Amino acid sequence: MDRQGGRTVTPVRVAVNRAVGELGAEQTRADVVVVGAGLAGLSAARLLVGAGLDVAVLEARRRVGGRTLTRWTSDGTLLDVGAQWLGPTQERIAALAASVGVTSFPSFDSGDHVILRAGRRWRAEGILDADPRLQVAVEEAWKALDEAAAQVPLDAPWTAANAAAWDAQTAESWILAQTGYEPARELLRMSIRGTHAIEPREVSLLHVLFHLHAAGGLGRVVATTGGAQDSRFREGAQAVSTRLAGELGDRVVLGAAVREVEQDGAGVRVAAGGHAVAARRAILALPPTLAGRIAYRPAMPGWRDQLTQRVPMGSVIKLQAVYDEPFWRSEGLSGQVVADSGAVRFIYDNSPESGRPGVLVAFVEGDDARRLGHKDPAERRTVVLGELAAHLGGRAGRPREVVEQVWADEEHSGGCYAGFFPPGVWTSYGTALRAPVGRLHWAGTETATVWTGYMDGAVRSGERAAAEVLAAM
Amino acid sequence: MDRQGGRTVTPVRVAVNRAVGELGAEQTRADVVVVGAGLAGLSAARLLVGAGLDVAVLEARRRVGGRTLTRWTSDGTLLDVGAQWLGPTQERIAALAASVGVTSFPSFDSGDHVILRAGRRWRAEGILDADPRLQVAVEEAWKALDEAAAQVPLDAPWTAANAAAWDAQTAESWILAQTGYEPARELLRMSIRGTHAIEPREVSLLHVLFHLHAAGGLGRVVATTGGAQDSRFREGAQAVSTRLAGELGDRVVLGAAVREVEQDGAGVRVAAGGHAVAARRAILALPPTLAGRIAYRPAMPGWRDQLTQRVPMGSVIKLQAVYDEPFWRSEGLSGQVVADSGAVRFIYDNSPESGRPGVLVAFVEGDDARRLGHKDPAERRTVVLGELAAHLGGRAGRPREVVEQVWADEEHSGGCYAGFFPPGVWTSYGTALRAPVGRLHWAGTETATVWTGYMDGAVRSGERAAAEVLAAM
Repeated sequence: MDRQGGRTVTPVRVAVNRAVGELGAEQTRADVVVVGAGLAGLSAARLLVGAGLDVAVLEARRRVGGRTLTRWTSDGTLLDVGAQWLGPTQERIAALAASVGVTSFPSFDSGDHVILRAGRRWRAEGILDADPRLQVAVEEAWKALDEAAAQVPLDAPWTAANAAAWDAQTAESWILAQTGYEPARELLRMSIRGTHAIEPREVSLLHVLFHLHAAGGLGRVVATTGGAQDSRFREGAQAVSTRLAGELGDRVVLGAAVREVEQDGAGVRVAAGGHAVAARRAILALPPTLAGRIAYRPAMPGWRDQLTQRVPMGSVIKLQAVYDEPFWRSEGLSGQVVADSGAVRFIYDNSPESGRPGVLVAFVEGDDARRLGHKDPAERRTVVLGELAAHLGGRAGRPREVVEQVWADEEHSGGCYAGFFPPGVWTSYGTALRAPVGRLHWAGTETATVWTGYMDGAVRSGERAAAEVLAAM
Repeated sequence: MDRQGGRTVTPVRVAVNRAVGELGAEQTRADVVVVGAGLAGLSAARLLVGAGLDVAVLEARRRVGGRTLTRWTSDGTLLDVGAQWLGPTQERIAALAASVGVTSFPSFDSGDHVILRAGRRWRAEGILDADPRLQVAVEEAWKALDEAAAQVPLDAPWTAANAAAWDAQTAESWILAQTGYEPARELLRMSIRGTHAIEPREVSLLHVLFHLHAAGGLGRVVATTGGAQDSRFREGAQAVSTRLAGELGDRVVLGAAVREVEQDGAGVRVAAGGHAVAARRAILALPPTLAGRIAYRPAMPGWRDQLTQRVPMGSVIKLQAVYDEPFWRSEGLSGQVVADSGAVRFIYDNSPESGRPGVLVAFVEGDDARRLGHKDPAERRTVVLGELAAHLGGRAGRPREVVEQVWADEEHSGGCYAGFFPPGVWTSYGTALRAPVGRLHWAGTETATVWTGYMDGAVRSGERAAAEVLAAM
């Protein structure tokens, strides 16, 4: 579904363009078949090929990269409309990118931020420094979250001493109990919305804690410099996948939406349209909710099937506005906006390293994304540009080009940033997340124990699944 | 998947046995295509046929009836292994059953119940009368629930004045805040587990309130005589669907698992295997989670697709034990057991109207069902029969036959009793539950506004969807 709201953009560039039709009507054979050519699937495939195995990768889309996607504006400026940031301790995505020659540069992070809170707007160095009461309340809450998060075992969150209590409540319930100061509550809500692209009422407190621990703590999650938003890829985040796919060559088949997976004592058979791959084992490198949409023979056992019914995807719209220059910088502004109302709660400077052209990226997340998701692209654009102008001045409302990405409308992602766990799911279904089912192994950033939900987690999950397969073969 | 733990049972009897292969490779035409031959789909189809339309009903299984399923023991005794009860105000299932000559009889409801609480076991007329403090705490809680439930608009729960607060917390959070008396908390948990087959930590308080209001209040939900467990079908619950399907004749196609639904300005095309039906409109009479597993062209908009990621099914195992006679009756027992520990929390007398043979039905729900769902049928049987014996005496542990049904393992149900709404889903996605998407209309008990989750809700949902289609054609 193309909901592109701005001018026409250059179509996605992919390294491999062979469609499944070229596979021929015959069944092909491989040692391992990988479903999904995002970072998880491609990482797994590379390791398996390196170990001397025959590998086939089936990808539903006519591009690789999954939740990374790079587009180009009409003047050739590269825009990451999906995952885009990397930061310290994200060692596996860093190593993978380096191995294919994809390089990074620091995110722009100088100048004052713009804060909108309770109807007032001001410039500030930080987001807490205007209100001492807010500062105390939020710092207490963050400390409590970090201390609790540190107690969540990353490979088995359901075994935390307090897992039952933490998984029985929403993050919203925790926020309400933690502080009675409404501005602090709203800021805590925003930190969850900005990280998961959902509302705090949807998610288990245990999941929030697990996610924080997996990322190394709240400070790392929210920070730009030194944190999860530290750097960006010069060649675009999707380039990691397109180059990997280029290496894998005709092992990667595009346009192959897998609908059926059969297995028996001898092997697996994965069918996409009229075509099939027979292999000894399969890695399904998809979010749990999409893995649940495949028909399995024999049928999945209930304990696994019901997990896939329970890990929905977040909701985010990224709208990027392109200007002749990053005019906010000359006004001493970072381009970063944190707003407690409106459709856009976070804005960042997303200009290329050269600083020309200027680019702002507006994040619409959670309920705001659902509300704007019902509107047509022109209406969405009007709403978002109006808020950009209100926060950063009239020029911000007059970009020369707009590129929008509505991730909930992407059939083969189901939403972004990632699958999350509502209350009760970790404790009742956690053991089913990674447990192989016969010859089927599970990958995808949702299955990662470090940096889950991030590109780094995706790579780690693919490497872990590949190791599982190698050990089993 | 056949996980039948006991002796061989007579295969399901179905009125129509034509497989999709007989449809021929050609595309067939109809005015309306209905996906799913449970009570919702068949009710819809009957109304549409009555209005003079050509209708095709595609059913994935080789039987009709969906979450109703009747089996026969080796001596020909009928057992409902799915939905089985009906009660006052369930007018639409009653009318539908009457119209096809399916009759009902009162559930057995005489004698003392057996109560297991905090390690003690005793006989009692009610479940509250042994502990005055428990009685006060639970009655206060039930009153609070009923009063809140009455404020939930049945056609739009998200518009309740307190919807935001109720949907931001789990039912477990509400229980913890409502009473500090642990036995009362446990009884409240059991009332939710017994109604939804889930744990209170999984579900939105708003959903629990909506469900109560839709059923006419908590008293009606939990009662046998005069309540939701009032009566049973003499011919078995599935007979309503098999007779309806018989009326519809070769309009119903079995073994037709729908994987793709296309629509455009002219009509819809529904594909099941190599076959397809072209029609003007479609009714998808499936739980939301299963509707989400179909590939749609064009792809579902995100606001609808993400709903289907967020309404998982409950988890219940029904194990029925057959004895020469209902020996508990002569001991003055009702056969009803309410236990606050163990795998089986509820037991009922499920003997046929004649009282011969004697049948007990044990319900394993929520986490107990997930835990036992990992075990093999023999282990499950040992656990459940051990508890039957502990509660109702040694004879209860020695049935002459056992019939088990693990609903989470049923690929084309995904679980039972119904789809439920975790926190945040009603308020963020409620408007997507029934809203047609182009030429596609949604049915299934989850979409009902009265007796949602019950057979009656299924029938009402089918009738509503049929009316929608008739109005649109």
